[in-house]
Amino acid sequence: MTEQQNNTTPKQVGIGLVGFGTVGTGVWETIKKNRALISGRSNNLFSVNIIKAAVRDISKKRIEDAPTELFTTDWNEVVNDPAVDIVVELIGGTTTAFDIVAAALKLGKTVVTGNKALLAERGAELFSLSQNHGSAIHFEAAVAGGIPIIKAVQDSYVGNDILSMTGIINGTSNYILERMFDAGLAYPDALQEAQDLGYAESDPTLDVNGWDAAHKAILLAVLAYGSVIDPKDVYVRGIERVTRTDINFAKSLGYNVKLLSVVLKHKDGQIELRTQPSFIPTKHILSSVNGVFNAVAVNGDASGEALFYGRGAGKEPTASSVVADIVDAAHTIASKAPHRGFLPYSDDTKIKPINDTSTPYYVRFDVTDKPGVIADIAQILATDGVGISGTHSPVDPENPDKEFVDMVFLLHTCTFGKLKATLKKVRALDSVNSDPVVFRIENI
Amino acid sequence: MTEQQNNTTPKQVGIGLVGFGTVGTGVWETIKKNRALISGRSNNLFSVNIIKAAVRDISKKRIEDAPTELFTTDWNEVVNDPAVDIVVELIGGTTTAFDIVAAALKLGKTVVTGNKALLAERGAELFSLSQNHGSAIHFEAAVAGGIPIIKAVQDSYVGNDILSMTGIINGTSNYILERMFDAGLAYPDALQEAQDLGYAESDPTLDVNGWDAAHKAILLAVLAYGSVIDPKDVYVRGIERVTRTDINFAKSLGYNVKLLSVVLKHKDGQIELRTQPSFIPTKHILSSVNGVFNAVAVNGDASGEALFYGRGAGKEPTASSVVADIVDAAHTIASKAPHRGFLPYSDDTKIKPINDTSTPYYVRFDVTDKPGVIADIAQILATDGVGISGTHSPVDPENPDKEFVDMVFLLHTCTFGKLKATLKKVRALDSVNSDPVVFRIENI
Repeated sequence: MTEQQNNTTPKQVGIGLVGFGTVGTGVWETIKKNRALISGRSNNLFSVNIIKAAVRDISKKRIEDAPTELFTTDWNEVVNDPAVDIVVELIGGTTTAFDIVAAALKLGKTVVTGNKALLAERGAELFSLSQNHGSAIHFEAAVAGGIPIIKAVQDSYVGNDILSMTGIINGTSNYILERMFDAGLAYPDALQEAQDLGYAESDPTLDVNGWDAAHKAILLAVLAYGSVIDPKDVYVRGIERVTRTDINFAKSLGYNVKLLSVVLKHKDGQIELRTQPSFIPTKHILSSVNGVFNAVAVNGDASGEALFYGRGAGKEPTASSVVADIVDAAHTIASKAPHRGFLPYSDDTKIKPINDTSTPYYVRFDVTDKPGVIADIAQILATDGVGISGTHSPVDPENPDKEFVDMVFLLHTCTFGKLKATLKKVRALDSVNSDPVVFRIENI
Repeated sequence: MTEQQNNTTPKQVGIGLVGFGTVGTGVWETIKKNRALISGRSNNLFSVNIIKAAVRDISKKRIEDAPTELFTTDWNEVVNDPAVDIVVELIGGTTTAFDIVAAALKLGKTVVTGNKALLAERGAELFSLSQNHGSAIHFEAAVAGGIPIIKAVQDSYVGNDILSMTGIINGTSNYILERMFDAGLAYPDALQEAQDLGYAESDPTLDVNGWDAAHKAILLAVLAYGSVIDPKDVYVRGIERVTRTDINFAKSLGYNVKLLSVVLKHKDGQIELRTQPSFIPTKHILSSVNGVFNAVAVNGDASGEALFYGRGAGKEPTASSVVADIVDAAHTIASKAPHRGFLPYSDDTKIKPINDTSTPYYVRFDVTDKPGVIADIAQILATDGVGISGTHSPVDPENPDKEFVDMVFLLHTCTFGKLKATLKKVRALDSVNSDPVVFRIENI
């Protein structure tokens, strides 16, 4: 129906997959099922065809209609095949995956990947290769699965200075925290349940230690501010040490506990970039992001606040994003246009030192209940100018004389550095028995 | 920093505005403020410059730094200027705006518009011009202001068969219904308040009669299913006749009332497409979309369910979307590539007749309370096979013998055609005093 269709034959764009597991199968099936839609929506400029796939075990039966000659065990055969225009990296990790992506970029090919760890850890090298060889990297699937947040930040908000991005971007952690909050499970039981349901890997380290979410937040900041970010500058805490005690306090105070990734541009140009379990008001829309869903709130200086919510992982949602990237790149390839992949455009993204960042806080002390303990703590906070907005210690109604062990303070906004210095003095008190537990209260 | 930057001078892309009111000013300011960001993010391929603007009154002072020679009162001067590559239509309406857009398309130029009425009512003619002249129409700002829902449906979900889209896409109606629900205002008072706050036009007809939302829903369906849709096939009801009585019943039954636009692809390929005030569970995430915010839930066969939420109108959010379209088009123009604007790709979008669409229903009868009235109504429903899931009539606790006038039935899912036929029989009963009030209960 289009002029292009009438005048020219659609350009054949060759796709090579490296890795043909769950997501690879999803990409194959999605392209097959919706081929006519994809062609029509692309004005019939091109046709995308998976023509090569590297796998570890070539004898494994993957998919009924995939011909045997599609498969190879050598990724070089995929990358070097002259008919392969787009290399889709789906093996994960930061070593072999790096070699594959680097080799493709050096050949001027387009790379599509969902590998957040690779781009967050070794983005500097890869984007430099992309720049020097005129090749492109697309990575919609790297952040929040089926939610098109990369395209939103890169293209739809191209006219915006991005003021903040706040996200729940690790489904495994979110599921575990939800079960602790809603069902009162202890952390190990909630983790076990997530593993039984297939929501957590057998090795869940990167999910629960916060780094999976942190990698994604780094990529969002790279897109928004234009230069690569050293992961060492980023503050990351996981959910492994979140206890039911603090979850219950949060609940009674009107908060939920979520693993929150925060990207915040300050007036001085510095970027606050951190991932940690945080208190958010139960009334806030992010509090109702449950299960393995993801959500990212984006605030641009023109667009105002927007929220993107959807499936953060899974075969089909991830495949949906990979296919969107393939089609985006195919447009460029078919029309021999300069690519639209991300390239760094700034040298000066400075990450604000975590000690200079400010929020209100929840602090819980494990204390010995003797006269003067609250006065002593309050005195230290007062001397240091750390304001108290509330205190909380549970009372057993049937035993009002029972000694308390948990003393909770809600503290007014101050820098994290100031808080730490003050808490060190509190910790030195005889009646304070261990390091205090600290959560940020997010002003969102 | 990019290869393009090193090797070539950025292409100057000329922008012409027709209309320089609120949104036009926002576009000017946004491009000016974030020019460096836009260039960097576009790999310095091009520079976008507003070089001509048609206005009604040339003497009106608009913006400090806009030179006098920018302005003309003749839109032909904008469209015909050879240096204008992109014509941005911002005057609204479907007559002069049509002439402007048609003239630009015939010259092979790219059009950016936020004019939902124009594209929904006269899209067939305009997309045909676009097709025949190799020109492009971009319209991110036409649906849901600053929310990038057009790009999401067109590009990010390119690999998806879109199963459904459900949206709150008229902020004025949403504000009015919220105030009726939360503050107990009557419709005229809520409308007046919206007008006082600038949320409703002095002539709010298209907002409150449902057609603004319906136009947007038509555009979403056009994008998702690829062919133009005749507005006459679309079922549209506004909020003008929503009463506090029904809002209160909704609340007591656990529902909110929202002006909901529903696009639903059925297994037979037919598209259900309707806009009407509907009951949705207060627990559903769309129920918490308040004020002038918009939200669209999209369900793709691969992506799964996603929700997009943000500011549906306003100077800056709309400007943000217009600038995104300008930059998108500038990429194409600078690289002399075939455009990526929407073109119809299907001939067979069939709208399901409204009488064949099914949901559960809320039905309220105004009755005379005499023995047998409930039995009579229930008997007619039973005979016609319309199932009752609940009944409700308010009792005054202090006056249990007071006669009721409102009799509410919650009905199981049946077609709208069947419901209407049955309700006609009920209406014929002596004790039923007026046409029943019907709301769909959305199964979302």
